[in-house]
Amino acid sequence: MDQAETPEIAHTHVVFDDGLLLDSGAALGRLVVAYRTYGTLNAAGSNAILVCHALTGDQYVAERHPLTGRDGWWAAVVGPGLPIDTDRFFVICANVLGGCMGSTGPASPRDDDPATRWGTDFPAVTIRDMVRAQKRLIDQLGIARLFAVIGGSMGGMQVLEWAATYPDAVFAAVPIATAAYHSAQNIAFNEVGRQAIFADPDWLGGRYWQHGRVPARGLAVARMVAHITYLSEQALTRKFGRRLRGNEAVGLVEDIFEVESYLRHQGSSFVRRFDAASYLTITRATDYFDLAADFGGDLSAAFRATRARFCVISFSSDWLYPTAESRAVARALNRVAANVSFVEIASDKGHDAFLLDEPDFHRALAGFLAGCAEHAGLAG
Amino acid sequence: MDQAETPEIAHTHVVFDDGLLLDSGAALGRLVVAYRTYGTLNAAGSNAILVCHALTGDQYVAERHPLTGRDGWWAAVVGPGLPIDTDRFFVICANVLGGCMGSTGPASPRDDDPATRWGTDFPAVTIRDMVRAQKRLIDQLGIARLFAVIGGSMGGMQVLEWAATYPDAVFAAVPIATAAYHSAQNIAFNEVGRQAIFADPDWLGGRYWQHGRVPARGLAVARMVAHITYLSEQALTRKFGRRLRGNEAVGLVEDIFEVESYLRHQGSSFVRRFDAASYLTITRATDYFDLAADFGGDLSAAFRATRARFCVISFSSDWLYPTAESRAVARALNRVAANVSFVEIASDKGHDAFLLDEPDFHRALAGFLAGCAEHAGLAG
Repeated sequence: MDQAETPEIAHTHVVFDDGLLLDSGAALGRLVVAYRTYGTLNAAGSNAILVCHALTGDQYVAERHPLTGRDGWWAAVVGPGLPIDTDRFFVICANVLGGCMGSTGPASPRDDDPATRWGTDFPAVTIRDMVRAQKRLIDQLGIARLFAVIGGSMGGMQVLEWAATYPDAVFAAVPIATAAYHSAQNIAFNEVGRQAIFADPDWLGGRYWQHGRVPARGLAVARMVAHITYLSEQALTRKFGRRLRGNEAVGLVEDIFEVESYLRHQGSSFVRRFDAASYLTITRATDYFDLAADFGGDLSAAFRATRARFCVISFSSDWLYPTAESRAVARALNRVAANVSFVEIASDKGHDAFLLDEPDFHRALAGFLAGCAEHAGLAG
Repeated sequence: MDQAETPEIAHTHVVFDDGLLLDSGAALGRLVVAYRTYGTLNAAGSNAILVCHALTGDQYVAERHPLTGRDGWWAAVVGPGLPIDTDRFFVICANVLGGCMGSTGPASPRDDDPATRWGTDFPAVTIRDMVRAQKRLIDQLGIARLFAVIGGSMGGMQVLEWAATYPDAVFAAVPIATAAYHSAQNIAFNEVGRQAIFADPDWLGGRYWQHGRVPARGLAVARMVAHITYLSEQALTRKFGRRLRGNEAVGLVEDIFEVESYLRHQGSSFVRRFDAASYLTITRATDYFDLAADFGGDLSAAFRATRARFCVISFSSDWLYPTAESRAVARALNRVAANVSFVEIASDKGHDAFLLDEPDFHRALAGFLAGCAEHAGLAG
């Protein structure tokens, strides 16, 4: 596929010229963190909420996306009067390290040759590396302690990592639809997506940038398989069942079920906003994630220093990050006598429920934040 | 990938020169059915068991596979003294219509131009078309009524279709780890596999045969994603957990988890024995399958004429064809007062359990067949 050059967008960002040392041992000479904020930081700097985005999300949480023109991915949750109330809180979201929406990633200029991009030479990053980059931004914004860190899926991994790595900088933590490690099944699904990218003729051994190509078909397949894992069987059936598209003749090649057409659309629209090398970098980061392993195999040990209040949230039909994995996080927190609530939201929408209109979830989130705000002495 | 030309193997087969009329309305001018048998047909012709193979299986049930050199896919179940006892029963298995192990399929010569292969011009086939082809073989072998029809997964769909289409020709039926229709989620996973094949540069719009190529990478990705759905999360975790391979450096491209290496092996070994166009044909056949739809939406109606004894078997950790779908089949049979037993085998091995060493499953199968043999007046 010929590359329709991604329009260059001026993302709000900060540059750290001293770079960042990564878990892998590699050092980035220059670190850019692109971010968006909503609401107003109070004089005490005590009302900041960091929202952490998921695998294919970005910092455009609650506004029109500059590339797709669509609403922000959490427009139903973040805004005036919404569960994360921007009349009350100062909300920050940063594009993750390794991403492709303005933060340093595979599409960024190389340290050793700024005229070319990193591509697949970009060093491997971890969830902790992402969190370290966010911490630099938070420091830069003059915020000593976040009122809350909140995120779903890979965003929830970042929440857990914040609590473990910067225990004094987090007053409240809300890991949603997530786990303390990536399961073998999740690694396997990610690997299918990566192999689909490598199989694309326009992958060109990872040098697609240099040839003005993008491995669009492979990336679309990767998105398709991931998308299935985000939905429950019930949600797929409700949306599509076994309905056929129109009266098309039965054939080998054409998509004939509505679900196929939907998946193809998901795949093809994704490639217009996402870079394949970023997809590899970020899926790898989730695969590496195993918080207990960094603490001698004891998940509780990761939370020993935290004084944060936790609200761990799962969804009953999420089979990518099942409730049992959230419960394991809650148990580990209990073992160190942390302040933790655990809520399983009854939903048939699967993993994606955290992005959708789920009133019970929104009520639980708003209620938890209101209680924490009271304890933090934030004016109502 | 250059094609290492598939060795031509002389499969045992019968040719029907009057061809086969398909559900799609298309007519095959010539029908070849490749098959294998085990054991001896008794004088009355009353001890025949038809085994129906799954998506990527074939007729080499209980012997060394001529292409891979490995044991037959059901060597643990079919043989002397085994649950399907070849000392007692005459076991038949035919390569499905649309397959690539000797039966008519996309790799067969075209009716209108025998010098070339059908490729993607091969007409769409249904599970019922597969069963019709098997019926021709059974007639040819002089068998008026099968003692039993047995199969798992797509093989189970054929079992249900046999009972519905040829009710007088089936004494006992054992649909295993299957369903009466393909769910939206199953269609979606199949579609990912197909898109991966289409994305392969060697797909060449389906004309890969003519260019001596095979879309091996795409087919391998299709196999990988399917393989994940065959295993339970527990089975994947037990097999691999999050174990890393050796001490390789962390990088973007290399597979570093054992599960990745295993999946790549599954994918690459599969392409040596399977044709991509067959894969499309057969996955489409499973997607079309909706037995109730052929009977006005009433699954019970499909079984109105059957007098067969059924043993419906599911596995507790099978998430591709969950127990609920087997139970729905059993309920439909109950509504027409059919003779039906339903067994859910407790197993953590996922869908693949029907192929593996599962003593409870083997005991249930052997017990059911023994009971049926008694009722059929077969000498013990």
